[in-house]
Amino acid sequence: MEKLSSLGEFGLIDKIAEKLKDEPDERIVKGIGDDCAVVLEGETNILLTTDMLVEGDHFDREWQTPWQIGWKSVIVNISDIAAMGGIPEWGLISVAFPEETTVPFADELMQGMVDASEEYGLKIIGGDTTHGDLLTINIAVTGKVDNDHLSLREDAESGDLICVSGDLGKSWAGLESLKAGKEGYTDFYLQPDCKLEVARTIAPHVNAMIDVSDGLASEVTHIADESGLGAEIEKDKIPISKETTRTGETLNKDPLQWALSGGEDFELVFTIPEERLDEIEEIEPIVVGKMTEEGRYLIDPDGKKERLQGGYDHFDR
Amino acid sequence: MEKLSSLGEFGLIDKIAEKLKDEPDERIVKGIGDDCAVVLEGETNILLTTDMLVEGDHFDREWQTPWQIGWKSVIVNISDIAAMGGIPEWGLISVAFPEETTVPFADELMQGMVDASEEYGLKIIGGDTTHGDLLTINIAVTGKVDNDHLSLREDAESGDLICVSGDLGKSWAGLESLKAGKEGYTDFYLQPDCKLEVARTIAPHVNAMIDVSDGLASEVTHIADESGLGAEIEKDKIPISKETTRTGETLNKDPLQWALSGGEDFELVFTIPEERLDEIEEIEPIVVGKMTEEGRYLIDPDGKKERLQGGYDHFDR
Repeated sequence: MEKLSSLGEFGLIDKIAEKLKDEPDERIVKGIGDDCAVVLEGETNILLTTDMLVEGDHFDREWQTPWQIGWKSVIVNISDIAAMGGIPEWGLISVAFPEETTVPFADELMQGMVDASEEYGLKIIGGDTTHGDLLTINIAVTGKVDNDHLSLREDAESGDLICVSGDLGKSWAGLESLKAGKEGYTDFYLQPDCKLEVARTIAPHVNAMIDVSDGLASEVTHIADESGLGAEIEKDKIPISKETTRTGETLNKDPLQWALSGGEDFELVFTIPEERLDEIEEIEPIVVGKMTEEGRYLIDPDGKKERLQGGYDHFDR
Repeated sequence: MEKLSSLGEFGLIDKIAEKLKDEPDERIVKGIGDDCAVVLEGETNILLTTDMLVEGDHFDREWQTPWQIGWKSVIVNISDIAAMGGIPEWGLISVAFPEETTVPFADELMQGMVDASEEYGLKIIGGDTTHGDLLTINIAVTGKVDNDHLSLREDAESGDLICVSGDLGKSWAGLESLKAGKEGYTDFYLQPDCKLEVARTIAPHVNAMIDVSDGLASEVTHIADESGLGAEIEKDKIPISKETTRTGETLNKDPLQWALSGGEDFELVFTIPEERLDEIEEIEPIVVGKMTEEGRYLIDPDGKKERLQGGYDHFDR
C-alpha cells in the first residue's frame, strides 16, 4: 500500500482539505492552506493555528534544555499568527510526558512556554497533560486581526517584489553544528525569536505574507501556489549572516541550502509592489526576488536559471 | 529527582495553574480547572479545549480501526464542550504519523474525524501533520455558550442532587474485553457517542456539570473540589447496564470499579437542587448521590461509608 512518505506532507494536507470541501461555512475566511485558519466572529477575524512537536523530530533533549524546548514550541505558533498580520490571544498546551520525566524537567519546560508567551502577549489558559513514550508537545493558539492587517499567502500580484525580514539559514546552522558536535552559531536555534512587531508594522502595506517554517524555497512556493503565480529568487540576494556563513565553512556545508530548505528561521517572507517599498523602509526589507506570471526559479548572479526546489518536508526522510 | 508520576496528573496541572496566576486578564471567565477554558469575546463566552491521544496509552491499532481512532479523538473534545453547556464551532487537528503509515490508514483516520465532526456540528478548519515514532493525535476545539447555559464545575451547592445522564463503566468494559481477548460489550468503547444534545437541554437548569472522562469518582471529586464542598455517592444507584454487568462476570471483574475509575463514558455528571429535578425530567436523570458540606464518601446499601477514591490518572502506572 502507498505510504504517506510517497505522498509527502503537503500531499496529505491537500487530501484532508479535499475531504472538508463539502462543509462550506460563510464564516470561514480562510480554511486549510495558510499559516492560520481565519474565521469571522461578528466583525472580528479570529486566527487559529496549531503545531505539534515530537521528540527526535523537532527537538532533542541532548542539545536543548527543557526551557529552550518550551520556549521554541510557543514561538513556532506565535510566528504563524505574526505571518497573518495578527496578534496572539489564547493558548492551549498539550504535553505527553514519558514515564521517566522528572518534576524539575516538566517545570522548566512549562516555564519556557510561559516566558515565551509573556514575551509576545499570549495568554495560556488551558491544555492537557498525559503520558506517552515520546515527549510530544502540541500548542494551539488563537489570535485576532483587523481586515486592514490580514495578510494571506494568496494575495501576491505579478510584479511584486519578494522580500524577507532578516537573515536565513541561521536555525539550521545551529542544528547542524549540534548534530556534528562542532563549534558553530547555535544561539538562534536554541532560543529563536519571531517577528511579531515587524509583521504588525508591515501588514497593512504588503500583499502576501508567510513565515519561514520550512525554508525560503518552500515559503515562496506556497505564496506562488496560493496566488496562482510564478516567482524568481536571486541567489546572491538571500541574506545569510557572517555567523551562519562561518558555520557553513566549519562544517563544509552550503548555508544557501540551509536558507532555502532548512526552515525554522521565523523570519517573514512577503510581497509588495515596488512603488510601496518606501512605506515599510523602517523595517529595512531585504528584496530577494519578484513574483512573475509563471515558473519558479532560482537565478544565479550570471543569470543562469534553475528550478526553485526544496523545503523541509516532515515525511521526506 | 522527583518524578512526575509521584506528583500525578492533577498535581502537575495545579503546578501549571500556579505559574499562570500572575497573568490575570479580565476577559478570562475560567482558566485551567474545568472541561474547557472560557473567555469573553465581546458579549460571547468562547470555549477552548484540547486533548492529546497517544498510541498505546489512549488507543491501540490492534483493536481499533483507524476510522474508530479518528472518531473517538473528536468525541473526547466535543464531550468537553458539552460539559460546559456549549456548542462546538471550530476544530484544529494535529497528527504525528509514524514512518510506516500508509495512505489508506491516514485517509480512514481523517474520515473518522470528519464524520464525528459532522455528527456534532464541528467544523475542522486547520491543523498540523508531522512525523513521529508513535501515532499521536491532538485536537483543539473552540465552542460558544450563552451565559444562561454556561455550566462550570464550581457552581454546585450543598444539598444538590448528584445526577448522571446514563450508564457508566461501559467504555472500560470494552477495553478490558479487548485486552483479555474475550467476548464482551465493546460497542461503546469502539464507537462512543457523547451527550451534546442532553447537555444543551439541561444546562440552563443545573448548577455544576462535568463529563465522565476519568470515572465517576474523579468527576465528583472535581465538582466537590472546585465548589469547596463534600459529596456522597450511593453505590447501588450507580447505573451499570446489563451488557457491562455481564462483561464483568465473564472477566471476573467488578463493573462498579469501571464506573468509578475507568472513564471515557462521556456521560454527564451534574448537580441540581431537588426541587428543580422535574425541570429536566425529559432526559431521565439518574440520581446517584448528593452534595454535602464536606467529606467525599461512597455509601453502601447498608449505610456503611467508605472514602470516595479512584479515577483514572495518566501518570499513575
